[in-house]
Order: sequence, then C-alpha cells, then structure tokens
Amino acid sequence: DVTEGEAAARERLTRMTVPPGALGRIADVGVRLAGLAGTCPPPVPEPAVVAVFAGDHGVHAQGVTPWPQEVTGQMVANFLAGGAAVNAFANQVGAEVVVVDVGVASPVDEAPGLLPRRIRAGTADMTAGPAMSRDEARAALVVGVEVARDLVAAGNRLLVTGDMGIANTTASAALVSAFTGASPEVVTGRGTGIDDAMLAHKAAVVRTALERHGLLGTTAAADDPLGALAAVGGLEIAGIAGLLLGGAALRTPVVVDGVVAGAAALVAHALAPSASHAWLAGHRSVEPAHTLALTHLGLEPLLDLGMRVGEGTGALLAAPLVAAAARALGEVATFDSAGVDSKAVAEGTT
Amino acid sequence: DVTEGEAAARERLTRMTVPPGALGRIADVGVRLAGLAGTCPPPVPEPAVVAVFAGDHGVHAQGVTPWPQEVTGQMVANFLAGGAAVNAFANQVGAEVVVVDVGVASPVDEAPGLLPRRIRAGTADMTAGPAMSRDEARAALVVGVEVARDLVAAGNRLLVTGDMGIANTTASAALVSAFTGASPEVVTGRGTGIDDAMLAHKAAVVRTALERHGLLGTTAAADDPLGALAAVGGLEIAGIAGLLLGGAALRTPVVVDGVVAGAAALVAHALAPSASHAWLAGHRSVEPAHTLALTHLGLEPLLDLGMRVGEGTGALLAAPLVAAAARALGEVATFDSAGVDSKAVAEGTT
Repeated sequence: DVTEGEAAARERLTRMTVPPGALGRIADVGVRLAGLAGTCPPPVPEPAVVAVFAGDHGVHAQGVTPWPQEVTGQMVANFLAGGAAVNAFANQVGAEVVVVDVGVASPVDEAPGLLPRRIRAGTADMTAGPAMSRDEARAALVVGVEVARDLVAAGNRLLVTGDMGIANTTASAALVSAFTGASPEVVTGRGTGIDDAMLAHKAAVVRTALERHGLLGTTAAADDPLGALAAVGGLEIAGIAGLLLGGAALRTPVVVDGVVAGAAALVAHALAPSASHAWLAGHRSVEPAHTLALTHLGLEPLLDLGMRVGEGTGALLAAPLVAAAARALGEVATFDSAGVDSKAVAEGTT
Repeated sequence: DVTEGEAAARERLTRMTVPPGALGRIADVGVRLAGLAGTCPPPVPEPAVVAVFAGDHGVHAQGVTPWPQEVTGQMVANFLAGGAAVNAFANQVGAEVVVVDVGVASPVDEAPGLLPRRIRAGTADMTAGPAMSRDEARAALVVGVEVARDLVAAGNRLLVTGDMGIANTTASAALVSAFTGASPEVVTGRGTGIDDAMLAHKAAVVRTALERHGLLGTTAAADDPLGALAAVGGLEIAGIAGLLLGGAALRTPVVVDGVVAGAAALVAHALAPSASHAWLAGHRSVEPAHTLALTHLGLEPLLDLGMRVGEGTGALLAAPLVAAAARALGEVATFDSAGVDSKAVAEGTT
C-alpha cells in the first residue's frame, strides 16, 4: 500500500550511495512514486503519453484574446501533423502524443492520434449563461477518465496533461478564482500574450461571469465542483480533470502541465481530494492563476522556465525528472553493496 | 558565425507555431545553441557524455568533512560499476559516463570507462602550502582540454561536467571566495552534510588558506587564475576547467553541474572570458558558493531541485531540456507552413 511503499523508499534513500538528503526534490518524487506503486523500487514510469484535450470557448466572443477561434482547430491539425512544440518535446522525451477532441468548434479531420470525443462544438459564452450543462460537463469528465483507462491499458505508465483551446486561460482564471477565492484581477493573466487594455477587459469578463454564476467570493465551487465546471469551465478542462481522476484511480502518475491543467486539478481535487496523491506538477507557468492553483493543491512544480505555451509542453519536459527519480531508487547501489564507507562509519555511529 | 546563428534563431522563433515569448528559457537555450553552431536550426546536441573528474584533497586532514578520504576511490569504483546516482541519471537521459582519475589518493583499478590521467595522488593541504604546483595545475587543465577533444572526436555533442572528491566543496568555496570576493563565511556550505560546529571550522579553514595565499579580499585570483587554482584548487577542479575550455574551443555546449563545476568555471572564465558562451548551467545546488559563482558568471540554472549530490547529477537532468531547445527550433512548424493563423493576422498587422 501507499504507506508501505513510501516507507520502503525513505529507508532505501538512507542506504543509497548518495549523501543524506542530497537528492532534494528528486527523492520526494521517488517516495511519491513508491507510494503510488505500493512498492520500492517503483517501476520506471515509461513510456509516457501526453493527452492533449482540445475544446473551444464561447467566451471568445467577449474579445479576451487576439487569436481567432479557428486557431484551436488549426493547432489540432498541427499536433496531428507533428508540427507543434508539444510534438518536438514529446519526441525528445520519448512520449506519444494523442489529441482528444472534446469540443473543438471547427471540423477536425480524422487522423492517427486523434480521439474524436466531441461533446459539443465549443462551450457557450459564460458571461451570458453556463458554459455548458451539468450533463455535458459530466460527459467531458468521463471522456477524460476513459482516456486514462485506455492509455494505461495500452501500456503507458506516465500520463501527461495537455490542452488546446483559444480563450481557455479565461475559463481557467474563472475556475481558479472560484476555487481559491483570489480576485479576478489577481488570477487573470496575459495568456498567449495580450496588452494592458485587453488584460483589464479580460479580468472584467472573468468578474462578470463569476458574479453571474454566484461564484465570486463564495464557497459555491467547493460545494458543487461540477456546477462550477459547467458554469465557467471548458470541455478540455473537464477532460483533463477526468484524466487526473482516472490516472489516480489506476495508481498511475500524472504530470500536470500549466494553468489550464491547474484549473482542472482544482476541479478534480474538489471532487476527490485523495486523487491528488497521483499528481506531479511538471512546471510553473508564468500565468498568475497557475501558482495560485498549485499552492491551493499543495503541489510544487519541478520546473520553472518562464514558459506559457500550454499543450502539455512544460509537463513533458518534467517527464525525464520523474523517471529519473524512480531509476535512482532502483539502480543506485547501497553503501554496503558497493563497498563505500558511509558517513555514519566515519562518525563511529555504526 | 555566432551572431548569424543567433539572429536566425530569433527570427525563426517569431514564426514558429508557439505564442510569442512563450517558450521562456527554452528559447534562450535554443538561441545559444544556434549561436554556437553558427546556424539555425542547431543540431540536436546528442549523444551526451558526462565526464566525472575525480581527485583527492590534502585539506581533508583539517577535518572539514566526516567522510573518510577513501570514499573518493570507492565512489570511483561505484561509478565504474554503474551503481551511483550519476549512472542512474545517465541511463535516464541516454548519456555515457566516463571517469577521469586526475588525482585520486588511493589506487584505482583499470576498468572500461576509466581514463587514467593521474597528475598526483591528491593535492597537498592548502592551509600549509599550495595545493599543487603551477605545473601540476596546468597539467590537470590540459587533461580536461584533451578529454573534451577526445569525447567530441568520439561523436559526443553535449559535454556534461561531473566531479568526485571528498573535501572538494572546501576547495570550491576557497576558489569562489577568491574570484568573487565573497567572504569565507558566506561561501562555505555544508557539502555532503555537516553540522554547525564543523561548518564554522570549515569556513575558518577556508579563511586560513585564502589568507596564507594572499587571496582573501584581493584581486590576486583574477590577476593570476592559474596561481589561485594551484594554491587552493583541486586536480578535478582543474580538469573540469579544462573541459569547459576545450568544449568552448570546439563550439560544443557544456552543461555545468554544481558548486565544484561552478568553481572550475570561475577559473576557466578568468583564463578565457569568451569561453563561457558555450556553457549552460544545469542546476542550482544548495551550496551557497554555487549561486555566487553562477551570478558572477552570468549563468542562470535550468533546474532548481534542492540537489547537492555532485557527480554531474544535476547537469545530467538538464540535458533533455537543452536537447529540447534545439529540437524546438528544428521541428516546430511555422504559422505559414502549418496553415495556422498568427496573432498578427488577427490584429490585422499583416
């Protein structure tokens, strides 16, 4: 079980030919993996797969981004053709890329690597009404759970969250405000790059949506996470939340990407707090809402590279660090077996 | 040339299907690699090799660490048997491990992966006299330059620095103080883990050595880097400094590990300032002297995981990030080629 695996890892760390405590965060990740596996050493979490959940956002109509909505579908085609940053980084770390269409507004052609799971062609404008119905939100969550199930059944041992959806940092900011209580002006960021005027407008849009749905400065989101997800979330956010829950249920580690995944993790954590045990924060995005979400979840990111690409790029770069943590527990010799004097020997305590 | 490669990379970054500026530090690394290669995209810097320079330290006699000096040779045997953290991490990132014996005090058996280049069997006690002669320091530097030459000739495209040497954080602290002007009490850290009493003693030892050699609060190190290296350095530190110079001369990127490599980089930078263009800081060690060295060199580490293992472990974990930066420039499609609307299109500026 979890306690046994973690205890075995902590014990082994004291005997490994490494100065005590010197592995820092890598040791913490190793302990976490051993807990998830219920044994030490934990298996090396390979191969990895990044599931890029794609969906469009009705709030795009409010002018929260300079990018046309069509870019969501165009980037999905780019992912499937292997031409995006997520593909380059996946190639680097030996991960597969799958794209889950949970709700792209424009048509997406079938292609290897595409999982067509469209619930609806993009959400509605959350400033005018709920982004989607509770049933749709639940269906999108189930898509994510099922994707986790299928990817693990196919042999993957590390799940990586990815996202694509023009305007999805607006929905993410709304969810992060709803779940953490931080004000819209604090959580709202520049996303893919907007100027001061558009940033102020975007924050006002987030405030309007939260007020409309009774999510501003209330506990409504914590009390009814599915309701909050339906009101101001997104289809791809729901899908990622499902992946996070599915991975946890399968005791498979999930590397969480940036702000969109952070918002999804808040939803998933509110639905099932213990699931967060399976999650590792891949990186810290420059979006302010991301750090707020990580803090709320008690997750510390492995990387902090000033990135804000989305797509799963930051989390992919952390995958080798996660695998290295498992390898350290499995492959590093003990002082005893390697014939290396330990510090304890020098101190005369053994 | 450098300027051309960097300019081409910066230009390509504006056309890639990634939001402007969103790749953060990874873009900076890509620009650096393109500059080194003199072309864009730069080749993916693979395979990587970590060169672990090993040497002993006469200052061990001053009681600056609880570890017996024999541990240096024992750990070298552990590296060659594949049982250390550096081996586990090298396996993870697909790097080769070579061990360079520049000055281990105890006998080291021949083994595949060992480069026997011993200059002398450990340094002398720097509190009683120079750690080594100028000729020995120069010879150890040349070992490093030649190791870089041989490893690149063998096809390696990324060099990673590694070190092993009980008491080498003491020598590193002395060098960092000598080159940055920071006081012995500020630069001296806990190394592989020492208590407050030993830490205070270790700082006093560093102060004594620096005073003896005229390196405390003077510009002597900057004026005569080889003299400072001989007085308070180490054989493995000299070897790493040579690797850093050799890599730069071959326009091959070198990932710099922790505090021992940081001290070596200060020496190498003082000898040839422009060489630092080829160096990437892999991680930030918890040793205080490391951050001082990085700041002095203008290097920002890619990882900050609270590690202090040495051996090249932190730098190895950064190798996939460096490779990913090159891959991004080579593999990510442009807006134009992928048929993705750019933000500029949305803004009506094209």
